[in-house]
Order: sequence, then C-alpha cells, then structure tokens
Amino acid sequence: MSTSAPPITLAKMRELFYSAVVCDALDGLGYPRQSPRVPLRPLTTQGVLIGRAKTTLWADMAHPDPRPYELELKAVDTCGPDDVLIAAAGGSMRSGLWGELLSTAARRSGCVGAIVDGAVRDVANMTAMGFAVWARGASPYDSKDRNRVIDIDVPVEIDGVRVAPGDLIVADIDGIVVVPQQVEAAVVRHAWDKVHAENKVRDAIAGGMTATAAFNKFGVL
Amino acid sequence: MSTSAPPITLAKMRELFYSAVVCDALDGLGYPRQSPRVPLRPLTTQGVLIGRAKTTLWADMAHPDPRPYELELKAVDTCGPDDVLIAAAGGSMRSGLWGELLSTAARRSGCVGAIVDGAVRDVANMTAMGFAVWARGASPYDSKDRNRVIDIDVPVEIDGVRVAPGDLIVADIDGIVVVPQQVEAAVVRHAWDKVHAENKVRDAIAGGMTATAAFNKFGVL
Amino acid sequence: MSTSAPPITLAKMRELFYSAVVCDALDGLGYPRQSPRVPLRPLTTQGVLIGRAKTTLWADMAHPDPRPYELELKAVDTCGPDDVLIAAAGGSMRSGLWGELLSTAARRSGCVGAIVDGAVRDVANMTAMGFAVWARGASPYDSKDRNRVIDIDVPVEIDGVRVAPGDLIVADIDGIVVVPQQVEAAVVRHAWDKVHAENKVRDAIAGGMTATAAFNKFGVL
Amino acid sequence: MSTSAPPITLAKMRELFYSAVVCDALDGLGYPRQSPRVPLRPLTTQGVLIGRAKTTLWADMAHPDPRPYELELKAVDTCGPDDVLIAAAGGSMRSGLWGELLSTAARRSGCVGAIVDGAVRDVANMTAMGFAVWARGASPYDSKDRNRVIDIDVPVEIDGVRVAPGDLIVADIDGIVVVPQQVEAAVVRHAWDKVHAENKVRDAIAGGMTATAAFNKFGVL
Amino acid sequence: MSTSAPPITLAKMRELFYSAVVCDALDGLGYPRQSPRVPLRPLTTQGVLIGRAKTTLWADMAHPDPRPYELELKAVDTCGPDDVLIAAAGGSMRSGLWGELLSTAARRSGCVGAIVDGAVRDVANMTAMGFAVWARGASPYDSKDRNRVIDIDVPVEIDGVRVAPGDLIVADIDGIVVVPQQVEAAVVRHAWDKVHAENKVRDAIAGGMTATAAFNKFGVL
Amino acid sequence: MSTSAPPITLAKMRELFYSAVVCDALDGLGYPRQSPRVPLRPLTTQGVLIGRAKTTLWADMAHPDPRPYELELKAVDTCGPDDVLIAAAGGSMRSGLWGELLSTAARRSGCVGAIVDGAVRDVANMTAMGFAVWARGASPYDSKDRNRVIDIDVPVEIDGVRVAPGDLIVADIDGIVVVPQQVEAAVVRHAWDKVHAENKVRDAIAGGMTATAAFNKFGVL
Repeated sequence: MSTSAPPITLAKMRELFYSAVVCDALDGLGYPRQSPRVPLRPLTTQGVLIGRAKTTLWADMAHPDPRPYELELKAVDTCGPDDVLIAAAGGSMRSGLWGELLSTAARRSGCVGAIVDGAVRDVANMTAMGFAVWARGASPYDSKDRNRVIDIDVPVEIDGVRVAPGDLIVADIDGIVVVPQQVEAAVVRHAWDKVHAENKVRDAIAGGMTATAAFNKFGVL
Repeated sequence: MSTSAPPITLAKMRELFYSAVVCDALDGLGYPRQSPRVPLRPLTTQGVLIGRAKTTLWADMAHPDPRPYELELKAVDTCGPDDVLIAAAGGSMRSGLWGELLSTAARRSGCVGAIVDGAVRDVANMTAMGFAVWARGASPYDSKDRNRVIDIDVPVEIDGVRVAPGDLIVADIDGIVVVPQQVEAAVVRHAWDKVHAENKVRDAIAGGMTATAAFNKFGVL
Repeated sequence: MSTSAPPITLAKMRELFYSAVVCDALDGLGYPRQSPRVPLRPLTTQGVLIGRAKTTLWADMAHPDPRPYELELKAVDTCGPDDVLIAAAGGSMRSGLWGELLSTAARRSGCVGAIVDGAVRDVANMTAMGFAVWARGASPYDSKDRNRVIDIDVPVEIDGVRVAPGDLIVADIDGIVVVPQQVEAAVVRHAWDKVHAENKVRDAIAGGMTATAAFNKFGVL
Repeated sequence: MSTSAPPITLAKMRELFYSAVVCDALDGLGYPRQSPRVPLRPLTTQGVLIGRAKTTLWADMAHPDPRPYELELKAVDTCGPDDVLIAAAGGSMRSGLWGELLSTAARRSGCVGAIVDGAVRDVANMTAMGFAVWARGASPYDSKDRNRVIDIDVPVEIDGVRVAPGDLIVADIDGIVVVPQQVEAAVVRHAWDKVHAENKVRDAIAGGMTATAAFNKFGVL
Repeated sequence: MSTSAPPITLAKMRELFYSAVVCDALDGLGYPRQSPRVPLRPLTTQGVLIGRAKTTLWADMAHPDPRPYELELKAVDTCGPDDVLIAAAGGSMRSGLWGELLSTAARRSGCVGAIVDGAVRDVANMTAMGFAVWARGASPYDSKDRNRVIDIDVPVEIDGVRVAPGDLIVADIDGIVVVPQQVEAAVVRHAWDKVHAENKVRDAIAGGMTATAAFNKFGVL
Repeated sequence: MSTSAPPITLAKMRELFYSAVVCDALDGLGYPRQSPRVPLRPLTTQGVLIGRAKTTLWADMAHPDPRPYELELKAVDTCGPDDVLIAAAGGSMRSGLWGELLSTAARRSGCVGAIVDGAVRDVANMTAMGFAVWARGASPYDSKDRNRVIDIDVPVEIDGVRVAPGDLIVADIDGIVVVPQQVEAAVVRHAWDKVHAENKVRDAIAGGMTATAAFNKFGVL
C-alpha cells in the first residue's frame, strides 16, 4: 500500500479488520502486549466492534453512595460518535455495572459498544437491542452502593494493557485489542496489508499447497 | 399497586419478571445478598425460569455407593408442579450429576427446571427437550460412585446464599435470585412496580432525555 | 451384541455415540479417569467429534523462535483421515495457537477437528468453515515467539489424562473422552449396548414409570 | 458470668480471646458469617490482634494521581489508640499499598495493627518493628498511581463481611473476625464463657475421656 | 538390599524417608500419580509425618445437623497407633473442621497426625502441642452445621489420588505421598536404596564432580 | 550521589538494597512493570537475593524423555559467580523441578540462588544448606518425564516480565524485581539515593512528624 493512499476510515476497518490481524500488525511494530489475557467475551453480539475508547474507572464500594450513578451518567451523556465505552472495573463481579438503560443512553450519544472488565446485567435486552457488549460475565445486582465510577476520561488498564481516551479499539470473539495512538497509522496500514496477504495463503492452502510450503512461500501464517 | 390488588401468580411473573428487577426489589427491602456470585449459566435455554425450590444436598465420594442414586431418584419422584430442582453440590465438577433421564422424570412430576451448583451431562439432549438447566459447566462422567445426594428438602446454600424449600427462584442469563419466603409478597409487589417504572425511564431516554436527567426525574436506573 | 457382530465403524459411532455413554462404558471396564476435568468447550460447532488422536506437545516461549511454526506445520501436513489434532499446551492462554490457516491445511490432510488445551484464534472463520474446535478460550495473539510445538506424535496429557497417538477421541458439549487402545474394542461394544439400554429407560420414564422404579428395573441411569 | 460482672476490657480480651472462640460466640447469637473466607494471613507476627476498625476503602488506578497518598496519610494521621487499620482493597495485588512508613506513622497514632485485603510491602521491616499485619500477600510496587484511598471512615466489606468503623476486630493465624457493634457485649460474654468451657473439655479428653463422651457431657467441641 | 533383609519398620522409615524419595520409588514401579497436586501445607510442624491412613469423608452442609460431630468423634475415638487421620473434604474452606480438641482426642488413641483437604482451626494451639497437621489453610469457623463427616473407613480421594484405609502415608514440606498397599513392600525397598544412592551423588557433586558427570555415573538425580 | 562516585558493587547492593526500593527506582525511570505479580515466595531463606540472571526455559511433558535432565544439568554446570538461576516454567506444579542436588551443583559453580516459576522439592534440605530459592510451591515429584528444559541462556518471561541473561535480579520476601541492562546504572543510583531518603522520612515520622507533613516535606513515601 503506497504512502499516498487515502486514509482507512473506521467504516473501512469495520469491513475488513478483526482482532487477530491487528494484533499481528502490532507485533510487527514492536507492540506485543496490546490484548488483555482475561476472559472478556462478547455477550450480546457476533461480529467485530471497532471504535475509540471512552474510558471510565470503577471502584467497589459497600456504603451508601452520596451521589449514586453520577459519573457513569456523565460518561454516557458525554459519549461521542464511534465511542466504545471502556469500564475498567478490575474484573469486579460485584454488580452488573452496565445494563440496558445505560446502553440506550450511550447509543443515543453515538456510542457503538461497551467493553466491561466486570459484570453487566440486562444481557437479554441488550442482545435484543443489538448493543455490542464484552464483559467478564453477568450479575443481576444493581451497581448502586456496590460499584461506582471514580474517574472518567483518564487512562485506565485492563489486565495491564493501558487504554487511553481515543485509542482505537478492535474487539471480536477472539479478544480485544488496544492500538496506542502514536502507532495507529502504521498499525492500520500493516493490518490492511496482512489482510490481503492472508487471503493468498488461505487460497494457496485451499488449492492444495502444504502448510509448510505455503509458509515458506508467503512468510506469514 | 394497591394492597387489594389480586395476587401476582407465577404465570404472571413469568411474563414480566427477570432476575435484575427482582434483585432491585430485594435491595429496596434490605436483602442485598440474594444472588450467588458464582458462574451458574443457563446451558439449555434462553428466557427466564421461575418456580419454587426443591432442594437436594450433594457430596463428593470415591468409593462404591451402597445405594446409588437413591436420594436423587426420590427427589425427582417427589417433585411437584412449578418446582425448580436445586442441586447444591458446592460447585463440584466431579461428575455430570444431572442429566437427561433425571430431567425427564422430574418434568413428569411437574418440575420446571434445575439449578445445579456443579456439572451436568446430556446438555444436547436436555436442550432438545427444552428442559431449563443452569450449571457451572458440563462433564460426561456419571455421578455413580462420584457424587451422591445426602439430604433432600433441607435448606442449602449456593455461594453463601441460603435456599430453603419452597423459596421463589428467578433465574435468567443475568443470574439466579432467591426470594426468602418471609419477604416474598413485598418483593413481588416492588418488582411489579419497578418493571413499570423502568419502562418509563427507557421510553424517556429513547425519546431523547439524557441519562442524567432521566435519573434525576425518575429516581431509578 | 454377539461377539460375531461386524465391527462398529467410526461412521457408525458418529451416528450413535456421545461422550457420556463412552464414559459410562469406560467406567464399567475399570477406566474411570478418561475425561479431563478442565473447561475445554466446543467453540465452533455443535454435535459430536469422533476420530483418532494426532498429538502435538506445546511449550510457552518468549524469545525469537529460530524455526517458527516448523513442527506445527509438520503436524498438520502429516495428518491422516479421521485424525483429531490434539494440542497439549497445558492450558496456556499465551496465544491463539490454532487458527483458520492451520484448520484449512489440517482438513486438507483429512483431519476432522482439533482439541486445544490452550487458546485458539480465528473462531469466527473456523465456525464459518465448519471446522470442529474444542479449546479453553480464544486469543488474538499469533503463536510466533509465544508458543511452539516441541514434539509431535508422542503421548501427551490433558489434565492428567494420557492421550496416545491413535487413541479414539469422542468430544461433544459435555466434554472430551479418550479411549485407550488396549480397551477400545470392549468400550465400543459396551457403549453400543448402553445406548440401547438408555433408550428403554427413557421410554419407560416418559411413559409414566417413576425414576426409582425405572432404575430398579433396568439398573442403569 | 453474671450480668453485674465488670466489663471485659480489650486488655483482658488480648489475654484470653482468639478468633475461633469469638466465631463460636457469634454463631451462638445468630451471626454465622463474620469471618472473611479469603486467604488473609499474618505476615509479620504471631499471636492475636484485637482492636477497633479504622476503615479505608481503596481503588485500583493507572493514571497520574493528582493527590498521591492524600487520604491514606489522613487515615494514618487520624488513627486513635487501639485502632486496627482496615484496608479494603478487594484483594488487589496491584501494589504493596501498606508498608513500613505507614506502619510507623499509624503506630505513633495508637494503631495496633493492619488488616489489608490486598498486598503490602516492607514485610521484613514491619516484622522487625513488630507491627502486626494481615494481608493477601506482598508486592514490592509502590501504591502511587496504582492504588489510592477513595474514602475513609465508612463501612467497607471484605469478602462480603461488613466492617464498620469502630467494630471489634479479632485476628490471628486462624483468620479474622468482625464483631458488629449491636451484638458486641453479648459476644464478649459468650466468648468469655466458651473459653472456660473449652478448658474443661480439653482437660477431660487429656484425662482419658473419649471425644464422644466429652461432647455428650459438655455439649461443646 | 537383599530380599532376606529384616522388614523396614515405620520407626526406621521416620529416620530416613521423605516424600520425594518415596515418589521416586513409586515412579520406578509404575505408580507416577500418588501425590495430590493441591496446596496442602504443614501448618504446625516441620519434619516428616509417616503413618497409616484412617479415612474420613466430609460434606458441606448449611442446615441444623441432627447429630453434630457424630462420625468425626467416632473416627477419632477409633484411631489406632500410627494412624494418620485423613479428612477428605474436597478442599472445602467452609469451616475449620479439625482443631485442638480433636487433635487431643486423636493423639490419645495413637494418631500421629492429620491430613486435611480443607481448613483447620486452633493452629496456634496445635502447634504448641506439637500435633502434625497438613491443610489447605485455616478458618475460625466451627464445623457444626457447616461440614460433617458422612463416612469413615472408606476409600477417599484427594485431588484424584485414592487413599484407602491402612495405606502408608508420607508427608513433609514437599507434599504428601500415598503408597498403595499392593506395592508397599517394593516401594519401601526401592526408597531405601534411593536414599543411599542419593547420598553418593550428593557427595560426588559436593566433592567437585559436575552434575552432568554425576548423573552419567550414578544414573539418578 | 555525584556521577563520579565509584560503582556500586553487588556486595554493596546486598548490604543496602531490597526489592521495594529498586521498584521505586524503576518507577522513577519509567519502568513500572518489572516485578511479576505471581506468588513466588522465598521457601528456604530470609533476606535479600541479588545476582545476575542465568535463564532456563521449561516445558511440561508426559512421555519418556530421550535425554533426561540434559539441558538442566548443562545449565547448572555453566553457572558463573553471582548467577541467579531462573527457571521459567510458566507456574507449572507438575514436578519439583529444582532440588537439593541441582542446588549443590549450581552453588559449586558460583550460583547464589534460584527463582523457580514452578515447583521445587527437597525444601528442607535446601533450607539446611542455606541455598536461596523462590518458587510457587513444592512438589515431591521428580522432573523426569514430567518437565524438561528446552532452552538455556535465552530471554524468558515470568508473568509477562522479561528476564534476559545477565539482568540484575533483586528478590526478597516482598517479591522479585528484574532490572533491564540498559537502565541498570541509573536504577542502581536512584535506588541508592532512595535508600537514604527513606531513612530521613522514617526518622522524621518516628520523631513525631505526621505522615502527611513528612510526605509534604520529603516528597517520598
């Protein structure tokens, strides 16, 4: 792909990209640790979620919250188009801290999905409305007096992987990948190239070439 | 809902209730710990299971059982209409202690589903017959000489949540909720009210109100 | 079943067998520990996978691999008809060590599925191509410089269950069963008999017999 | 023990009480869930720690803290005599959030020990200074920009056990017990009685009585 | 060691044997899976515990026990000399199911130690009395209405390792080994030989021989 | 400390350094992830282990090893003075892969201790000989046909922290820190300065200054 090529838009990425090929591009550029190794699974959708990180940092709590929901409501009301809501809750299963009403409000602001390192609730309704959610699992408990947002729009971590506001997020059934902004342009180009290279390998193997020969010829797997 | 309203039947609950709204009602009445925080997932069905607890207490074992299956057979043969079989096995993955034949027999007695804090087997066949089962996972091992029922119709615990015979059980993809009998009537009324209140919030947000404004107006989320 | 009966082919087994009934046959013959008790779930298919073990032994690594993919490519290129690729990786989630291209190559050699005691990637594409894969979970990371095959065609273990090259493998949603070769003929016969015995119990219970009476009459559950 | 007996002081409790006997007293009064079932071990001392809860609530974080250490410094500087610092960090191993300098400052305020549901550092130095610390484990990382206190002097939970400011805490190698204030007087009396009853059983068994006979005679074990 | 050598008594084993050398002997005789791979650590003693298994099988429970302590009291009262009490509780941390009074009673019957696949209490007092206990950890909770013995003197399993009444048990800080009775005589002889062979290797290496050369010469490590 | 100061030797570091202060120095230089967050505890010694990494990479296995012990023997025989043997086994508890004879041989080559991300055996004897070992735990199983070294003197990872041959290692009861070579000189100087700064804070607090005031004055904690 020449350097004068037009930029690859999010819409274009959504047609072609998937988490594995983005990971491979990051590997090639020296960023080998950009996917959390925790079981965050898509609970409501199939397919690939691509967007930009809108971060929230959560804490567990066990006392009456003086301002329940305050910062999480602010977060959903300040989402912009193509945002992916990141809920960094350290894997907490204390409550279903994300649910149908927050999804409805976030979508209205342009948010395209949520990655929750914790539990969610209303899985059936979020599935029905087609809102994309990745999470550790589900819990019927309300977050009130159990979990609360303590900061929004700050860098957070999921399993040691840093997610900064605005980072490109690519999530699918294989996992979640975070693309740091300083390397995004190069990663997108490499991923684009890899998508096309893999097609050749796939065709060659499907056409009868051994895997060993295909790897020797194309150099990728 | 006025206090002279007609009672809300199990059939009515099955149309309207789900685990999260029942948890919220329990929260409002001072019962904030009625849903086990262990990964008990629906393996064979979608939708909501509502009924009354029929309890069995299980133990691991590793020697020839002098009376294999005895108490579990008695439990399924004494199920009544609307019963939900509770298998309190402490999360044991030692065998698939519930399966197709027990499901068939239990259903014949009126049992509407099973919650197994352990492993089950025959998942494909139980799915085909439409019998609702929540479990930690699956195992192809028979329970004989691996697990056995040591008591039936006694209070049991799942992850510290007490389940007494006859307790109202509400389970769906978000989780499992146990309603203690002394508070059941109030919980059912509160849940009924919350179902309708949530509809208003959902409509308001879908209609363009911010999440913050909706919470300030309706006081629920 | 008389001893002069014709042999039961893999094709025949695929119509009738499932993991639980094979476990029961192994129990009856004194082999009670032939199914790993680790969460290896079918990620790409429903139904039963039956074939013969083609083993690979994997190790984690973190340095530049002098010969990346070498032995795994050799393994897929030397698969034969009805082989089930066994990737013994000790549950490693370090990378998606099996994926679409390897599946394509392995299938071309006759391989009917893969059991990966670790993570895989390309789950969506492997689902689309209908290649049967059991795994601990998924990861978008390439295996290069993260995991490599250190031996093929040797006995391996999954959760302490030995899998030797050529062993009969039966896997479905309930779990995975390994049939040692020295007992395979007897296990197959016993499983065949059990399949038919269970049908009688199921019919009797469905016809109104209590579970207790059915067990007393037929002696199986 | 008659109701007109003089109050049992903390000093007296420190001579006689241990966590098991206090748990037994709580059991007898209908409080069966007052000891967290998480591995919080004494890292720096042997013996029993008894005092009153001074609570801090912690959150994980991954961005530059605008006011590092602020609330944890306030907590240690506002400890009073006989306080036991409670760090409710949800089991976080992200940093050694308690260490030698905080121990030195807390002790100067009268604090007699710390219960950290997370990691600590400076274990060797805290052992040398004889400061009693229970924790999940150790970590050499500083808490700055990794963990911070988000609230002090509020009720917190450790593994679902509520700890309110001022609650009586009894910790030793067997575990940690929290005595709710509304039942403290009765628990202390029951524990006192149980200490003496156990001495009789112990003497009887040591003197040759079978365990069965001793339990039948004394009714406690 | 000639076949006419006098039998190796438990007293002699206690001078010379340790868990690793007994494992090696079992390996050599084709018994490679005789040590549970769960964290059962010595809580009260250093040194090696050697004796014969006196088995108890435990279950979790959560309802009023009609006959509290009954079978566990019977077990300790029927211990004989050199018995090692085995509490197979499946790793349950629900209560401290073994403690000082049971230790006192068991010792009086000749019992030399306890292996508890679960939690114990009274660790400080059991340490003071020098009673050897291996366990998963500690808990201050009484076992009453939490755990109970459901069988004694039957074969049990710890992490899949079968322990039959009378089996030789060797436990130390490295772990726990169970010697099946049918192979005990041969294992004891092999272990005896290995103890002496290791001394030679140790001396050779300490004397300057490389590890490679020592292994090549002596064939053991 | 002026830049013309004499170099700080390993011997000097052993007098003054500990893992926490080295972590703090790494934090200050932008290396915040140099200590594995896995429970690697000192099993045989108290105090601080400081030396240079001598790496070995291990794999699990379950078949007869054609060349048992080969590479591990080579590793211990090629250790040099001040080496710390690193066994990167991914946390495997499959065998006690390090023990007394390897310790004896390694020490003879100058090796000062071992960090084993897995299990060890002969803990009592290694304690008696004063050989410093950090490990996940212990196991009496021999490594033969269970684990083997597949590479030596290559970069390895422990919980995602890279350890290259020759890296400075600092381990104590708080944890293990790896200092990358490109930043070693600066880390050592910063740690040296921090050791002295902490002494001032400790003295100030011990002398009556509040923790808040001390942090405001000295800027470190």
